[in-house]
Amino acid sequence: MPYTPVWFMRQAGRSLPEYRRVREGIPMLESCTRPELITEITLQPLRRYDVDAAILFSDIVVPLRAVGVDVDIKPNVGPVMGRPMREAADLTPLRPLEPDDVPYVTEAVRALTAELDDRPLIGFAGGPFTLASYLVEGGPSKSHDKVKSLMYGDPELWHALLGRLADLTISFLQIQVEAGVSAVQLFDSWVGVVAPDDYRHAILPHTSRIFAALAGYDVPRIHFGTGTGELLGLLGEAGADVVGVDWRIPLDEAARRVEPGKALQGNLDPAILLAPWDVVEERALDVVRRGRTAEGHIFNLGHGVPPEADPDTLSRLTDLVHTASVRDLG
Amino acid sequence: MPYTPVWFMRQAGRSLPEYRRVREGIPMLESCTRPELITEITLQPLRRYDVDAAILFSDIVVPLRAVGVDVDIKPNVGPVMGRPMREAADLTPLRPLEPDDVPYVTEAVRALTAELDDRPLIGFAGGPFTLASYLVEGGPSKSHDKVKSLMYGDPELWHALLGRLADLTISFLQIQVEAGVSAVQLFDSWVGVVAPDDYRHAILPHTSRIFAALAGYDVPRIHFGTGTGELLGLLGEAGADVVGVDWRIPLDEAARRVEPGKALQGNLDPAILLAPWDVVEERALDVVRRGRTAEGHIFNLGHGVPPEADPDTLSRLTDLVHTASVRDLG
Repeated sequence: MPYTPVWFMRQAGRSLPEYRRVREGIPMLESCTRPELITEITLQPLRRYDVDAAILFSDIVVPLRAVGVDVDIKPNVGPVMGRPMREAADLTPLRPLEPDDVPYVTEAVRALTAELDDRPLIGFAGGPFTLASYLVEGGPSKSHDKVKSLMYGDPELWHALLGRLADLTISFLQIQVEAGVSAVQLFDSWVGVVAPDDYRHAILPHTSRIFAALAGYDVPRIHFGTGTGELLGLLGEAGADVVGVDWRIPLDEAARRVEPGKALQGNLDPAILLAPWDVVEERALDVVRRGRTAEGHIFNLGHGVPPEADPDTLSRLTDLVHTASVRDLG
Repeated sequence: MPYTPVWFMRQAGRSLPEYRRVREGIPMLESCTRPELITEITLQPLRRYDVDAAILFSDIVVPLRAVGVDVDIKPNVGPVMGRPMREAADLTPLRPLEPDDVPYVTEAVRALTAELDDRPLIGFAGGPFTLASYLVEGGPSKSHDKVKSLMYGDPELWHALLGRLADLTISFLQIQVEAGVSAVQLFDSWVGVVAPDDYRHAILPHTSRIFAALAGYDVPRIHFGTGTGELLGLLGEAGADVVGVDWRIPLDEAARRVEPGKALQGNLDPAILLAPWDVVEERALDVVRRGRTAEGHIFNLGHGVPPEADPDTLSRLTDLVHTASVRDLG
């Protein structure tokens, strides 16, 4: 590829009127279990944007629900558990997935790879801390106090929980890879609330196991979280080929914090999309310019597309990155 | 002082049964306008903990309400505006405070300084980004998309807004200092969602003006935000004497990111308080040890005391820091 590749987290989603149309009256988690809907929604942004990858439409709690965890996604709230997980007995339902647990994923991935031809399809799963946070907090949390007090206060239960989440995640990603996805992203979106030493001891061993289990497949492994300025080196060390970076840290500084050989992904502030085009352009060029200091750069936002973003802005942005990335930007 | 001084953000608050008792049936903002209640709540933690400072009981939206902004604090939600601020006309109510706008603050500070004798009383105000976020978003926000899109997209309105907030904040802090507080903390709690270059251009000029306006008073100026790993140098550069640090970055690394001459405050993860005592102890000693690399260290949490924290833990923690900080910790 001569230019910097581009895709957007949540490129398929509420910012697209055609997405809102097909989702009408269909609860989020139900829409993630209908192969034809997964396929349609995954393809929607590719009809608008010249992005270099599709990302499978799904949700990080899909594999939890598939093994019988009582979880739902409440509109404008997020994942909510029937009962927060607090003790060893609560871990029982967490087991590795069999392909039969998620036939809709296999079916959708096959349909999509047939349709997409050479364009990569990115599969994904939630990272162990983020899944643990929803399970233990019982829903979205600002402070993550409960999950962190488990992490700090009961290392045995913590490692048992994260071990099971890692097994479940490995099986979920392997099912996606075997069905045909050509890259995977681990979304440990909230892991940035953990300090580096804690990350190393409490989380990294489990994440390393997830990435190691995918090493034989020859699919690039992307590792993403927000607020991870202090963790970037460790996110790479866990075994990712590409480290996702949020907008809080300039990409050239991020490049200094990862080991040699790691590519970066990111990191335009999603809120920039709501500003006038000349601001979007200036900032996107700055990201492309700083991205050149990394050993490989995939252009993306620093987090998901905001629902209020104008799809035309994303369309222009995609083209801008493609053309600008082969130019001398000074 | 021979030992590392200690106080806790939100040491007066929901973690104390006596706080919940005196607040019963009294809305938050009303409780911030009754001098006898401000005084009582400010003193409550000092009856339990041997902390080295009291912090005035108030809220960052108190000065907004005092000039007539339609804001209330909803329990379990936070500050909510009657109408989000979006255009130049909305700035009209924002003006500097006169002492008569907040007589309850002056009265409470006078009563407190009489009562506290030599123990310092910390005054405070909200930082310009955090106040702007509540005003523009209309309430608490996860993404801060609206306030950032104003910052990115309409610099003229943005600087007009932050200029007025700075004026209001200067007057509010000066009223507190003239009434007798012996230190001030600027809580720009959510400013960590802004990248360093944006901080420098869009926020720092206003914060610098606030700190400069206090330079003549000989009161230490503390500057705090969460998620500010990339901003620590700039938070000091804005004119603070002490830079507050959250738990995401070890204090020794934080010390490397601020200019010489700046002290640090922090940074035990508040969630640690919910773990068993041996974990609290180990982590607190680690904070004290790393804090020795800074040019001055005030022990604190990385953010506020969680409502679920056990007051006895905070009491033991205070004593631990006092005794440990004069010992050789290796």
